[in-house]
Amino acid sequence: MQYVKNLPTYMVQRYLGWKATTYAENKAWYRRLADEGQRPRAMIISCCDSRVHVTSIFGADEGEFFIHRNIANLVPPFTQDGDHHGTSAAVEYAVTALKVAHVVVLGHSNCGGIKGCHDMCAGLAPELEEKSSFIGRWMDIMRPGYDRISSLPEDQRTRALEKEAVLVSLENLMTFPFVQSAVEDGSLSLHGLWNDIGDGSLHQYAPQSGTFVPV
Amino acid sequence: MQYVKNLPTYMVQRYLGWKATTYAENKAWYRRLADEGQRPRAMIISCCDSRVHVTSIFGADEGEFFIHRNIANLVPPFTQDGDHHGTSAAVEYAVTALKVAHVVVLGHSNCGGIKGCHDMCAGLAPELEEKSSFIGRWMDIMRPGYDRISSLPEDQRTRALEKEAVLVSLENLMTFPFVQSAVEDGSLSLHGLWNDIGDGSLHQYAPQSGTFVPV
Amino acid sequence: MQYVKNLPTYMVQRYLGWKATTYAENKAWYRRLADEGQRPRAMIISCCDSRVHVTSIFGADEGEFFIHRNIANLVPPFTQDGDHHGTSAAVEYAVTALKVAHVVVLGHSNCGGIKGCHDMCAGLAPELEEKSSFIGRWMDIMRPGYDRISSLPEDQRTRALEKEAVLVSLENLMTFPFVQSAVEDGSLSLHGLWNDIGDGSLHQYAPQSGTFVPV
Amino acid sequence: MQYVKNLPTYMVQRYLGWKATTYAENKAWYRRLADEGQRPRAMIISCCDSRVHVTSIFGADEGEFFIHRNIANLVPPFTQDGDHHGTSAAVEYAVTALKVAHVVVLGHSNCGGIKGCHDMCAGLAPELEEKSSFIGRWMDIMRPGYDRISSLPEDQRTRALEKEAVLVSLENLMTFPFVQSAVEDGSLSLHGLWNDIGDGSLHQYAPQSGTFVPV
Repeated sequence: MQYVKNLPTYMVQRYLGWKATTYAENKAWYRRLADEGQRPRAMIISCCDSRVHVTSIFGADEGEFFIHRNIANLVPPFTQDGDHHGTSAAVEYAVTALKVAHVVVLGHSNCGGIKGCHDMCAGLAPELEEKSSFIGRWMDIMRPGYDRISSLPEDQRTRALEKEAVLVSLENLMTFPFVQSAVEDGSLSLHGLWNDIGDGSLHQYAPQSGTFVPV
Repeated sequence: MQYVKNLPTYMVQRYLGWKATTYAENKAWYRRLADEGQRPRAMIISCCDSRVHVTSIFGADEGEFFIHRNIANLVPPFTQDGDHHGTSAAVEYAVTALKVAHVVVLGHSNCGGIKGCHDMCAGLAPELEEKSSFIGRWMDIMRPGYDRISSLPEDQRTRALEKEAVLVSLENLMTFPFVQSAVEDGSLSLHGLWNDIGDGSLHQYAPQSGTFVPV
Repeated sequence: MQYVKNLPTYMVQRYLGWKATTYAENKAWYRRLADEGQRPRAMIISCCDSRVHVTSIFGADEGEFFIHRNIANLVPPFTQDGDHHGTSAAVEYAVTALKVAHVVVLGHSNCGGIKGCHDMCAGLAPELEEKSSFIGRWMDIMRPGYDRISSLPEDQRTRALEKEAVLVSLENLMTFPFVQSAVEDGSLSLHGLWNDIGDGSLHQYAPQSGTFVPV
Repeated sequence: MQYVKNLPTYMVQRYLGWKATTYAENKAWYRRLADEGQRPRAMIISCCDSRVHVTSIFGADEGEFFIHRNIANLVPPFTQDGDHHGTSAAVEYAVTALKVAHVVVLGHSNCGGIKGCHDMCAGLAPELEEKSSFIGRWMDIMRPGYDRISSLPEDQRTRALEKEAVLVSLENLMTFPFVQSAVEDGSLSLHGLWNDIGDGSLHQYAPQSGTFVPV
């Protein structure tokens, strides 16, 4: 595997700084986490986007949040075909093995994946419609969401679609039998958030009004 | 969607604290990140485990790292079957759209996913072998890695398998044509890491020796 | 004192968030509290248990409640032997110096201290009976309470003992001359509560019925 | 026990508000905490003072911090005389049963207990020197601290004594064999803090300089 290279110096230096500070200050807690295992209270499903720092936004300590990050924070519908389903496996592990009390779907503004999804669904990105496009096929999960916002004025569509991505994921979460039963017996609650990267605001889905309202 | 609940108070309070400090101090940068889009220098593929804080270990600034997190930091082999492949989509987006310079696979100690994989491959966890187990099917990606460590003394196997998970993912990354070509033309480099949660040490795969050595 | 370490980073970050929000919004009030001193209306005697947030349950504002927390929210009987009595000192300070109008004893479900007390009194935890066990000697305060519930069916005992802990503490409070006189002249009233952590219910001791009834 | 009264209406109303919001939003987590027990990462030893909200300052979620509060956040020296030692019992439970990773002693400004201690040690409060004074006898724990600051200008003494209270408690903590061994094997770390109520600043004891420095 000669194609594997050494870590860039700046990453090594930052790691060494972390080891001498954050780790050193928290050593006893890291040791306990290693010995006793994790016991996160919540799972957060977020985007891979480099601008969204889940642990920073929620002042997370090591061990608090089980975090799955994929393109556009999507959850596919329940499909037991024996294939590799990374997101479904993460949800299954969090809910059935870790028994988290909360699953939070965190969407965000200016999402490149959602923009691509919009263009694909609007027929503006034929390359994403090809079977060979992993991004396109992942974004197919969002097609039901697109149908709900396609009649909006064009300048409102992508932002609306970013919020629909959160709702589609929440709806799909409920198609997993173990999620539905945990929600019904009160041992699990679901939450939907959307973060505006530019102004730092956080909005949550309010079932009462059926809209996203500022936190 | 009456099953969606409001965010717990402590998360709201922490968010408000973040907004008034980290965001307020970085406002201009967040604005620019929103207007100009992200331009991450590296993609990091890590585990969902709540004990591994990628952004903390590497002192990440918003916008620096495109982070995909799944169970056991796995990358499946290149398979163009038109299905939803979240990890493949994330790799495709990072390499072809964002053109990251590095892809880092970060494994860790005490990984519950790897432990389950070991037990499944050793025939000790029949429930994970069922077609209906998302965790088991996701772990199938690791079977080639298990074959390489199955002859080791039992107490060394899971730790060895945690490192194999990093190597299997690196090998699978190279099965993606766009990854291979980027690596070959020098525009992308791959890196393999393993973090010991308990003692905070970080080890990287050294192609020279074919082993993991402390950073 | 080289054994003293720096505060973990996540606690520093959360403090800075608090400073920039809760403190900043209440600055004038904090200033006044510092200049004029506290003037709490009530003292609350609660357990150290991390699951019982007195300030959250009663929406406490800074300056409202003088809170003493110890294992199993116990008050020892009045004993003037010149030793260090932290709980007695707290009660003396609250009643004679701060002249609080209420003293509330707040018990709770799933209390580890009460469980240990039950096992010790039932002869199931010899290690707690040793003179060297601080927990055991502290739990001796509860022995009169155990005698009152020891004849109950086993599965009802610890919950009953949790409520007895509240009553024993209230009885012991009345053995303090300054408490008794304040109660008799109507300047102080005593209250007994028990919180069920799991279902969030709060029960108070009703002297009319001599039982705990839901609030 | 006719002297026990019903809870004041405003406390009942606030509790009902908490039940309908904070509890309802967090129901699944509360249930899990009740079923699985607490697993706090840190013990915080704070003052009963109504102006110091530990959970607010550190954005605590239920289950995070095991909190003992007494007058002037004091820890008495290790004394195994078979008497009731509430603080020693709390430390023993946190370190040996809960195995917390951190013990934080949090002092604060304008502390009435420390002021009384200063006056007593300076011979200005004979009533606190009487054997019958619980406050005085509790404050005896601080006498070694007073000796270290008695030569300072009078207007600096009480503030200096507030910080000495933190140091005396840290020193006394180390006289407990189970604390010392946990600190020595790296499974426990100690921290000393002092909060200025008026300006909201937080200072921590820095062993390097032997002084308290702003966080």
